[in-house]
Amino acid sequence: MGSVTFDRLAVGQSVTDATTITETHLVLAAGIFKDFNPVHANESFAAASRFGTRVVHGMLTAGMMIGVLGSYLGAGALALVEQQLRFVGAVHPGDTVATEWTVESLEPKPRLREGGGLVEFRGTCRKVGGPVVIEGTCKFLVRGAAPDQADS
Amino acid sequence: MGSVTFDRLAVGQSVTDATTITETHLVLAAGIFKDFNPVHANESFAAASRFGTRVVHGMLTAGMMIGVLGSYLGAGALALVEQQLRFVGAVHPGDTVATEWTVESLEPKPRLREGGGLVEFRGTCRKVGGPVVIEGTCKFLVRGAAPDQADS
Amino acid sequence: MGSVTFDRLAVGQSVTDATTITETHLVLAAGIFKDFNPVHANESFAAASRFGTRVVHGMLTAGMMIGVLGSYLGAGALALVEQQLRFVGAVHPGDTVATEWTVESLEPKPRLREGGGLVEFRGTCRKVGGPVVIEGTCKFLVRGAAPDQADS
Amino acid sequence: MGSVTFDRLAVGQSVTDATTITETHLVLAAGIFKDFNPVHANESFAAASRFGTRVVHGMLTAGMMIGVLGSYLGAGALALVEQQLRFVGAVHPGDTVATEWTVESLEPKPRLREGGGLVEFRGTCRKVGGPVVIEGTCKFLVRGAAPDQADS
Repeated sequence: MGSVTFDRLAVGQSVTDATTITETHLVLAAGIFKDFNPVHANESFAAASRFGTRVVHGMLTAGMMIGVLGSYLGAGALALVEQQLRFVGAVHPGDTVATEWTVESLEPKPRLREGGGLVEFRGTCRKVGGPVVIEGTCKFLVRGAAPDQADS
Repeated sequence: MGSVTFDRLAVGQSVTDATTITETHLVLAAGIFKDFNPVHANESFAAASRFGTRVVHGMLTAGMMIGVLGSYLGAGALALVEQQLRFVGAVHPGDTVATEWTVESLEPKPRLREGGGLVEFRGTCRKVGGPVVIEGTCKFLVRGAAPDQADS
Repeated sequence: MGSVTFDRLAVGQSVTDATTITETHLVLAAGIFKDFNPVHANESFAAASRFGTRVVHGMLTAGMMIGVLGSYLGAGALALVEQQLRFVGAVHPGDTVATEWTVESLEPKPRLREGGGLVEFRGTCRKVGGPVVIEGTCKFLVRGAAPDQADS
Repeated sequence: MGSVTFDRLAVGQSVTDATTITETHLVLAAGIFKDFNPVHANESFAAASRFGTRVVHGMLTAGMMIGVLGSYLGAGALALVEQQLRFVGAVHPGDTVATEWTVESLEPKPRLREGGGLVEFRGTCRKVGGPVVIEGTCKFLVRGAAPDQADS
């Protein structure tokens, strides 16, 4: 896995990825989140609701969104500091969703042991060929040098 | 599963739940989030980091936090509208975390087909007997009447 | 579970088994292999590819093939020593595949603590009623006597 | 996810990644491989065996090895064509293993619709700070141009 450090990031830079969210994702998310709301876990209930079929947990799609940055930053990421997301559309099993994050701001943190600073990203997740389902921002603390340098 | 509707909620009311987060939770979260950041997936790396051992995905703990409300509201929940969370401490496999949400405000939405309104919750997730790890707010759209009335 | 020991195996003998590979198999394999190649994890991408839809990880089907022998040999298996496989056709979620292994050679290993020897198998995995998808060989070290004798 | 095409690969180039293999990986692999050999699934049996504790399925570790290339090549990978692996050491739950692949040869395939050619990799998987557990080769068919060019 790669390692993207603070000095390699620039405002306006984008990171994208797309994934098909399956029924299996929904079932595993329900199990690890302990969230069996009938709109997620009961097709009879969901079919009669405004959604017409089961809806994927918003926090599953949100976790995938943040995961795009976790994977991209790799060993460069020190911590997810905060995120703020609005859920504006439903995702159903079988939908393919595409995340796009753009670097919004870079704030050096000179006192950080590992160097680097705080990176704010602004992003969306949308159905491929369709509407936005989640939009918002998140902040990661990103190290200034490759971990084997910083930690040795 | 129960169903908590808008009229049954009051400002100041609390909902709590606690769960042990295991290595299995971490491995499943990595798979469904596609997030194998080495701090989650590589014990050798994590042991040499500031954390000392693997860290659970913040979005897994966050998904559990939101899941406490998804389970509590049950069929009363129409949708998770937004959430805003700060990650202030690391969770490791084996930790037991307790979530507490309190109703912060209730905003009736008279034009909503299902009745009800928007409910803002403020909450924390802390290690049992330990520090807060996540804090923030979320908003759910909650229906005004039980679904079998609203949908018939 | 049974236990097939070296002396019970003969050149030309066959072992077969068939399994339906589901989307759940694919999603779990992606998570444990850390392999989210878009041909496995992105239906939009896969639909536009030469395959027309998502393809199961070759190593999942290969793992099932080897698993047929792991299950058959049971406590008789001392170790999988090597395997050599060619991937000649794609498997998609929903396909049922049938594995057939035949004993190719038996090489006694008199110095082996547990007795027995090296068994080479030659095999194929094909879609039921369809083409071969994987073909090749593998070698297992197989004990000469039931484990409760060998280990006491 | 990135996309590494044939023209971007050079003989001698390396790709590495490391992962901790957990008990959860073993349990999920047993379920999707249908391989419940007692050395994998029965701690009492395994404790009395030459291994002293449960052993991870060789094909799980092998699938992770191949997955390092599936993830690295991304949309550049057209297909896994073959692999040939020797299992020279046991992996136990809790072990962190590191894979290293090196490009061994590049064979252009001018008639391939997507351009590109066959790439042979030679690699090892070893316990971090310990011995090699798997070694061998594999071949991928890799496209010559980015998929959106090749497919449009």
